[in-house]
Amino acid sequence: MIRVCVMGAAGYLGGELLRLLLGHPGTEVARAVSTRFPGRRVDSVHPNLRGRTALAFSSPDDLDACDVLLMATPHRTTMTLLPEVRRHARTVIDLSGDFRLPDAAVYERYYGVPHAAPELLGEFVPGVPELFRAELAGADLISVPGCTATAAILALRPLAGLVGPDVQIDARTGSSGSGALAGDANLHAERSGAMRVFAPVRHRHEAEVSRLTGLNARMTATGVEAVRGVQVVCHATGAADERTLRRAYREHYGGEPFVRIVAHRTGAHRLPDPKLLSGSNYCDVGFAADGDRITAIAALDNLVKGGAGAAVQCLNVRTGQPETLGLEFPGLHPI
Amino acid sequence: MIRVCVMGAAGYLGGELLRLLLGHPGTEVARAVSTRFPGRRVDSVHPNLRGRTALAFSSPDDLDACDVLLMATPHRTTMTLLPEVRRHARTVIDLSGDFRLPDAAVYERYYGVPHAAPELLGEFVPGVPELFRAELAGADLISVPGCTATAAILALRPLAGLVGPDVQIDARTGSSGSGALAGDANLHAERSGAMRVFAPVRHRHEAEVSRLTGLNARMTATGVEAVRGVQVVCHATGAADERTLRRAYREHYGGEPFVRIVAHRTGAHRLPDPKLLSGSNYCDVGFAADGDRITAIAALDNLVKGGAGAAVQCLNVRTGQPETLGLEFPGLHPI
Amino acid sequence: MIRVCVMGAAGYLGGELLRLLLGHPGTEVARAVSTRFPGRRVDSVHPNLRGRTALAFSSPDDLDACDVLLMATPHRTTMTLLPEVRRHARTVIDLSGDFRLPDAAVYERYYGVPHAAPELLGEFVPGVPELFRAELAGADLISVPGCTATAAILALRPLAGLVGPDVQIDARTGSSGSGALAGDANLHAERSGAMRVFAPVRHRHEAEVSRLTGLNARMTATGVEAVRGVQVVCHATGAADERTLRRAYREHYGGEPFVRIVAHRTGAHRLPDPKLLSGSNYCDVGFAADGDRITAIAALDNLVKGGAGAAVQCLNVRTGQPETLGLEFPGLHPI
Amino acid sequence: MIRVCVMGAAGYLGGELLRLLLGHPGTEVARAVSTRFPGRRVDSVHPNLRGRTALAFSSPDDLDACDVLLMATPHRTTMTLLPEVRRHARTVIDLSGDFRLPDAAVYERYYGVPHAAPELLGEFVPGVPELFRAELAGADLISVPGCTATAAILALRPLAGLVGPDVQIDARTGSSGSGALAGDANLHAERSGAMRVFAPVRHRHEAEVSRLTGLNARMTATGVEAVRGVQVVCHATGAADERTLRRAYREHYGGEPFVRIVAHRTGAHRLPDPKLLSGSNYCDVGFAADGDRITAIAALDNLVKGGAGAAVQCLNVRTGQPETLGLEFPGLHPI
Repeated sequence: MIRVCVMGAAGYLGGELLRLLLGHPGTEVARAVSTRFPGRRVDSVHPNLRGRTALAFSSPDDLDACDVLLMATPHRTTMTLLPEVRRHARTVIDLSGDFRLPDAAVYERYYGVPHAAPELLGEFVPGVPELFRAELAGADLISVPGCTATAAILALRPLAGLVGPDVQIDARTGSSGSGALAGDANLHAERSGAMRVFAPVRHRHEAEVSRLTGLNARMTATGVEAVRGVQVVCHATGAADERTLRRAYREHYGGEPFVRIVAHRTGAHRLPDPKLLSGSNYCDVGFAADGDRITAIAALDNLVKGGAGAAVQCLNVRTGQPETLGLEFPGLHPI
Repeated sequence: MIRVCVMGAAGYLGGELLRLLLGHPGTEVARAVSTRFPGRRVDSVHPNLRGRTALAFSSPDDLDACDVLLMATPHRTTMTLLPEVRRHARTVIDLSGDFRLPDAAVYERYYGVPHAAPELLGEFVPGVPELFRAELAGADLISVPGCTATAAILALRPLAGLVGPDVQIDARTGSSGSGALAGDANLHAERSGAMRVFAPVRHRHEAEVSRLTGLNARMTATGVEAVRGVQVVCHATGAADERTLRRAYREHYGGEPFVRIVAHRTGAHRLPDPKLLSGSNYCDVGFAADGDRITAIAALDNLVKGGAGAAVQCLNVRTGQPETLGLEFPGLHPI
Repeated sequence: MIRVCVMGAAGYLGGELLRLLLGHPGTEVARAVSTRFPGRRVDSVHPNLRGRTALAFSSPDDLDACDVLLMATPHRTTMTLLPEVRRHARTVIDLSGDFRLPDAAVYERYYGVPHAAPELLGEFVPGVPELFRAELAGADLISVPGCTATAAILALRPLAGLVGPDVQIDARTGSSGSGALAGDANLHAERSGAMRVFAPVRHRHEAEVSRLTGLNARMTATGVEAVRGVQVVCHATGAADERTLRRAYREHYGGEPFVRIVAHRTGAHRLPDPKLLSGSNYCDVGFAADGDRITAIAALDNLVKGGAGAAVQCLNVRTGQPETLGLEFPGLHPI
Repeated sequence: MIRVCVMGAAGYLGGELLRLLLGHPGTEVARAVSTRFPGRRVDSVHPNLRGRTALAFSSPDDLDACDVLLMATPHRTTMTLLPEVRRHARTVIDLSGDFRLPDAAVYERYYGVPHAAPELLGEFVPGVPELFRAELAGADLISVPGCTATAAILALRPLAGLVGPDVQIDARTGSSGSGALAGDANLHAERSGAMRVFAPVRHRHEAEVSRLTGLNARMTATGVEAVRGVQVVCHATGAADERTLRRAYREHYGGEPFVRIVAHRTGAHRLPDPKLLSGSNYCDVGFAADGDRITAIAALDNLVKGGAGAAVQCLNVRTGQPETLGLEFPGLHPI
């Protein structure tokens, strides 16, 4: 059994990690750490776990030795915690934004504060098994990309060599990405039915996408009506026709367990839609071409493939277990 | 021009009052009072009013003489403010729960605190023109019922004499009823798609309904997915058939400008549904019978006929203007 | 391996059966029968199964011998099919309404047509393991109750002896219960955000509830904004306090794998809410008391515990497999 | 009184025209024509008009002389009807797509059929008062642009001279744009919560946008969870900073009654969001810049400023009435 601790376990990503790990036949949750709710039952905060666990949250002081430490703590906080807590675990998998970028200056540009542990930035392997499977098998520090970044990276990677360097990404996100502590702007009455362009330019995930695709990515992001779910629509320039595109996507993803190519000519489900993916670890990718323009599309559940699921997938790779273990839920239709 | 001041103008009911009063040809908004945002533009908080007003919020200290003072301040606060501020206006219309019940002991039972101005409780006329039109024409103190109470009162009044004394009311409400300051439980991710039974027994509006219908009302309330909108389904016992019921509703509401009888045998819109009523001042009422059971149904927009619209309707009656003035918006379909 | 055939496999319940059975370690799907789409790939209709199966729909003529035949065909059609197709299987589990009532006259009253196979009505065991586990272990004909009926039966059973005979059930349902072939009234623009009282009196499930609880049940039903999910709020009369109620529910459900008691005093998740249950086989039950009134509440996913999941649970019981096999998904939060 | 006939009056745009015209002090609805429902009451199809009108639908044979004929008939049908019915009216305002493009070959490319009345194509004035106010004052044939086209045109017009020729438009739309006769793909269970990219490339409105902005517009469109509402996010290249952009938008729209500039640095309502606009005739426009990239954003209600409201605004201009008459509803918040 892989012994696992989760920090930030009372948040939405923390809850999703607990759901996956408690149902995973190869892992044991040693600690679910929360600074807000130490001592309180986990299922009082994550009510979907009622009947599944009697676990209570631990205080950060009770962190114990484990095989894998999962950090679901906030951006800007994680970088101050990690240097201290990493000694408890052989492998640390970070779900925050703090170790995604290799360059402290770029970090500061997008996160607005200097980095607290710049010396560690270069040591993290990105938590994208589709790109870094071999490296992840031996990694001690793993950083899972942002949810829209993972979607855009998987949508765009097959286009390398087929498109010009500039890509415009239009991301749409559900409300759970703002976390369980979001303020008045995320009240139901305010957020329900909104199309809220919260990042008209320079969404912070564009730096990650540029890094891992080699493209010059710009990202706009809009909150739409959904709790879970991310979709990216990426606009690029290139002359490839749809047949060429299909071949490229198949070459990249033909053997991937969690990337499906969804690019039909007709039908309500012809292209990737996160509506189908709640709870699943799939990232669906699709494409279309019109003359010199190429549109690439991806969808995922931001809390699963865009966070906790990707982390468990990395854990499986790192610990030598079957990559899909504990991640078999296929998603629901209709929902 | 009727000179009007609004207290609690930054809340949802306050915003709805401003929308109605700024579009009303017979009223002038002298003050929009907010303790949170004095000096800030009204349209920065109520963005639907952009381009409609350059008004800024006033501090409570700047309250000025007016014809009608509208109180959209919170329960428990209003009863401490009202004795002091009422001198500024000829007529006060209160939208809070503080002056709806004539009995301080009943108030304490439902609101959990002793009443701060029990001597005023008996002086308020209920803000239900369909029942108290004549009294409202001369009233100096008016108290608008709760949103689910108004719906239930209008649904049940025609049944007097046709049903037994006990009635079970099942209320469903949108999230705007919780106000603009609601906490974590009303985050979009938590509240979206919920069916949250927040009052399985003894909803506080049941006392108002019992008082104004003469029935022994019990009320259960569930928050469902909607921002605006209240629906009540009332279960009573009685032998009247649907023809008798229709006659009773027609007698009560045949001449009412804001109560529509909606009771068809088939069709998607056969019975009252708040989906059709957003922004409108209608209360739709309907009914059905099966043997010895009678079901009465009503729907309204909680911020309009369930609050601000009812208040403006009362203002019109009190100030001798046409009762429908400023309240003509019919609602949208589809929406 | 249990060999299973599904009829009506292209509908919503059929798709949910396929999702559960394809992920079930003890079953093999021999046929997925559809009259509409014979020959077409299953995942073209149920896109959540992409990457999970290469199965295509069969024509009804290709039905083959199997251990368990699951009928997800429409009401009124199933009773004409079943006498013919039952010879293919040792056990038939019917998810339609056609064999839920033991009396042809009651059937005709609620379904509007005479029953086509009245001689079979008495042979079916209700598909409620919580009530009929022993009988189901040997049953050859099983009839799964309606979704709101299952919820109401599980909510009310512990109240036997504690309440008077009359109970008023208020059911709220999502849109998936209308099926994949619903007409204009279920267009998104019409159904979105609705509170549509489609059965103000005499919902057809009330007969099933009366039968299995021994109470005199009346049921009203309203479509609210949700795709999946059923909630019932049941109003009864009785003097039991909450402590007595809790003891009764614990006695009934303390050992049940799929019934959870959810009855807290505070919190957003204090009482059963189907929002938490999408994809899970739980039925959450709760209660509250006020004087002589008792409110009982239940929630479930209409396509799982209210249909396909209950059928698989019965299949597990009937075939001697662990009752929870293939039904482990806990549901998501937030969603 | 302006005498008006509406063809296609039973559809969603037809219903919205009736709502606006019945509430308009300067118009009289002479005929509401429907081929589906002749003789049936208008409020049986448009239930928000209950209590507002006793009008019944007319058959197309009963079309009568009028000042303005409004065509809310389907694409491809309208071009066959118009040559015949235009003799009934001095002015025809067409809301379909059939007369938006001046070139029959471009029409055929986007609509898939040859044009039936190509000789009329050059005679229509686009129904965009912000661009063609003078021409509209004397126009006999007016063609209202598509909903996403109007949004994009108003978002992009101020950028002429500030951006390069290529613009990528990302449009998001609600379900009402598919009309009241949409098929299975628009069932609530399928469409609810979707992010459905129905036009990954070459949305048909791009031709209109290119024509009226002088840019080379490409448009992608996604259906998101909403009934009403369109938002466009337009990506262009140019060096203008936000101050320059603001000046450009103010120059274009400073005096416009229905275009508001919404471009704040922070806040939940910082940029245009159709959530605020249901029922209103506003088109909100905003912008942001980052280096050499410019993002322009617009939002509107597709049935009002994107259709029926624009038509009434054109009618007002054409008939010499105040441009805002009958279009005063400001929209709701929260909703």
